[in-house]
Amino acid sequence: MISRKKPFAVGFIGRSGSGKTTLAEKVLAELVRRGRRVSAIKDAHHGIDLDRPGKDTWRYREAGASRVILRTAERWAVMSETPGGPAPLAELIELAGEADIILIEGFKHEGSFPRIEVRRREAAKEPPLAERGELKNPPVAVATDFDEPGFERIPRLSLNDPQAVADFIEDLMSGETAREIR
Amino acid sequence: MISRKKPFAVGFIGRSGSGKTTLAEKVLAELVRRGRRVSAIKDAHHGIDLDRPGKDTWRYREAGASRVILRTAERWAVMSETPGGPAPLAELIELAGEADIILIEGFKHEGSFPRIEVRRREAAKEPPLAERGELKNPPVAVATDFDEPGFERIPRLSLNDPQAVADFIEDLMSGETAREIR
Repeated sequence: MISRKKPFAVGFIGRSGSGKTTLAEKVLAELVRRGRRVSAIKDAHHGIDLDRPGKDTWRYREAGASRVILRTAERWAVMSETPGGPAPLAELIELAGEADIILIEGFKHEGSFPRIEVRRREAAKEPPLAERGELKNPPVAVATDFDEPGFERIPRLSLNDPQAVADFIEDLMSGETAREIR
Repeated sequence: MISRKKPFAVGFIGRSGSGKTTLAEKVLAELVRRGRRVSAIKDAHHGIDLDRPGKDTWRYREAGASRVILRTAERWAVMSETPGGPAPLAELIELAGEADIILIEGFKHEGSFPRIEVRRREAAKEPPLAERGELKNPPVAVATDFDEPGFERIPRLSLNDPQAVADFIEDLMSGETAREIR
């Protein structure tokens, strides 16, 4: 079944070490198990490089290619240089293909999709993003492994229960939780 | 200057070890030096993987993501699974962005753009592709480092002169060489 509907975007935000990649990965697997087509977008730091020195794709890039595309039997990859600065998230969403859901890791200041804040006791040295008033779009839920105060206004999910987080996302998609919150 | 023109596609074909990546890389650098915006497309073998086990992008893919997108300060990358088999070249060309020229390595049986056959004496154990009659679109030139018979009907370029190969490509673009050949 090919749907032409725009994919539903949902984000995971949290400090480094909060476990947001691990949670997003498990939630992604759970949504795929449920028959959803899922793409993922990750914001990474300066210096992270998918390519490796000496590989042919890397050599083309170093030679000055604007984009390098690699096709193998299993997949394709496109790498595009952005000398004018990081690509806007909206542009990346256009690249997500035919998906039902896009899981977005990071990008806490970009876009207006719902976000889940990830908190893990061991890494929770700073106040929650939900409480800091610096986000234009504050989180709609928290996924956490401890009983931290300060999240009274939003649903609390278990960091260790990806199925419950997947349920929450599917509820969001169908608009149910969105209505509950308001 | 942003041109909306379709990029000019040109290919490099040749056996493994012929030096086609090295030549394409140098020609690419030369064309960029001349102010051209160049993208590159490479056909690789089964088993080649841009991603590395354990990396976050790899984890998302393993979890079942259809596409994984990574943004860094310098570039973005998209990796798309193709469970139905390798993506057609035409689809990849659409992903090449705003380029003046697309250098295409491999894909000897796909598409109808001009191709340069790369031959290197040390690796020339089999007859040239130009002579084998198995290509729907035979090469329009050969880039070689030795005086091999069998290329009488097409221009002979030096494998060690990327500037001359870049000249040849720019001539092709302007239609001059195409007319000379016919």
